[in-house]
Amino acid sequence: MTQEQRPPLPSAARTVFFVSDGTGITAETFGHSVLTQFELRFRQVRLPFIDTLDKAHDAVRKINEAFATDGQRPIIFSTLVKTELSDVIRQCKGMYMDMFQTFVAPLEQELQVKSTHTIGRSHNIVDSEEYKNRIEAINFSLAHDDGQSHKNLSSADVILVGVSRSGKTPTSLYLAMQYGIKAANYPLIPDDFERGKLPSSLYEFKNKIFGLTITPERLSEIRNERRAGSKYAALENCRYEVNEAELMMKREGIRWLSSTTKSIEEISTTILQEIKPDRREY
Amino acid sequence: MTQEQRPPLPSAARTVFFVSDGTGITAETFGHSVLTQFELRFRQVRLPFIDTLDKAHDAVRKINEAFATDGQRPIIFSTLVKTELSDVIRQCKGMYMDMFQTFVAPLEQELQVKSTHTIGRSHNIVDSEEYKNRIEAINFSLAHDDGQSHKNLSSADVILVGVSRSGKTPTSLYLAMQYGIKAANYPLIPDDFERGKLPSSLYEFKNKIFGLTITPERLSEIRNERRAGSKYAALENCRYEVNEAELMMKREGIRWLSSTTKSIEEISTTILQEIKPDRREY
Repeated sequence: MTQEQRPPLPSAARTVFFVSDGTGITAETFGHSVLTQFELRFRQVRLPFIDTLDKAHDAVRKINEAFATDGQRPIIFSTLVKTELSDVIRQCKGMYMDMFQTFVAPLEQELQVKSTHTIGRSHNIVDSEEYKNRIEAINFSLAHDDGQSHKNLSSADVILVGVSRSGKTPTSLYLAMQYGIKAANYPLIPDDFERGKLPSSLYEFKNKIFGLTITPERLSEIRNERRAGSKYAALENCRYEVNEAELMMKREGIRWLSSTTKSIEEISTTILQEIKPDRREY
Repeated sequence: MTQEQRPPLPSAARTVFFVSDGTGITAETFGHSVLTQFELRFRQVRLPFIDTLDKAHDAVRKINEAFATDGQRPIIFSTLVKTELSDVIRQCKGMYMDMFQTFVAPLEQELQVKSTHTIGRSHNIVDSEEYKNRIEAINFSLAHDDGQSHKNLSSADVILVGVSRSGKTPTSLYLAMQYGIKAANYPLIPDDFERGKLPSSLYEFKNKIFGLTITPERLSEIRNERRAGSKYAALENCRYEVNEAELMMKREGIRWLSSTTKSIEEISTTILQEIKPDRREY
């Protein structure tokens, strides 16, 4: 089907609901990925913490109101675990997609184990080791942002290096928040280039170092947003810094990638594949 | 079915694969949520960037190897968009769950629009407004962490207040990273309690302020991890600070919640429901 043959876009945006007995983040993350497959605009409404029958009926009312207003069926992504709640939502005047039941039931069959909901259990995330590791990693990454601290670098999982504004800070924080990875980061600055060497405190951790680079043009753009017209942001200076940083990483045998067209999610995933921190399998 | 009647747990862990043509983060986030419904341990392997037939065949080999090693069918969560790739993976000796095709096909029907994959398009996330907002929000939240800066508070979406170590920093960063919310945070310190007032720079933004509190016992525990045996961490001091902070929030009419048993995801979701930042619908 070519572009021309596609049906015209509806003038009014559809409403999409993310319904969950928890935060709704899983429903929303997944729903977003599916919706980006469509070149349409959606009005998006999250309905988190739907954990009683009353709240479920209330949700149905909101969904039906959207149907009345839009004149089109709303779309519902649900991660409700309890069937007594999803049975209520299912009665709404929308297109109901039940992400959990679609996959949990066949898994119970395959694993020959009932799901914890079915046997009436629940966990407190906050007490889990995984959650504690994430919070610890966030604190570590903040304390080791921008070369602030040389302390405890031995407990870092990853040390990112690169010129200022090459994407080290958001990537470090994402690695910590999403994966519980302790990511320190060090800026490569003109002093390092003149010396022609990595900061000396980093040498013993070379196997954990990963470099980020960026095109000088994009770097200059980003730096100009912060300090317009400065020498720091000038294209010529950016060319010099990027070139020196790349030469240094090559000389030192440091793995690196360009962040120019990559999101922090893509950068982080690539780093995990390359560095393979001990504690995790990738 | 009671606990006793459940089939015994298999001795060897199953292997779970998250297969994606991108980062695999959607497959993993969703897969995790589903797997936490089962009281089993899983060996988890992510196979990101599977975007060619060669890589797909390679993935099948890895999955089949796991089957041979484990003696049990691996479980595959896939968000592959292209059918020519998912058709390859589907031939593996595992239980294949295709998260995209399960939902995209019925949505094409409902929306009467072909998905962008079907018409051969793709987007570069990094150029999207949403992505830029997220990065900007991360930078804003970092610059406004722990009361570091009073500049541009008018462009904050949310200002978190609470005693030191009540969860403000990780929550601010999560709001920025996940939702592109500019979240500043201010510690409430003994000076504020003696003065009996919020920091004066915050008054004009009172409608954006949200408070975090925590039980003194948990706070003392957290502070002791940082500074064992200090006055700062002493239970009595924590009791004083928490009590004063709560009194102040009540007096000033600030909405607040307790972070004691809540994850940063749960705290963030609740804040969004309460504050309803202009730019978003919740």
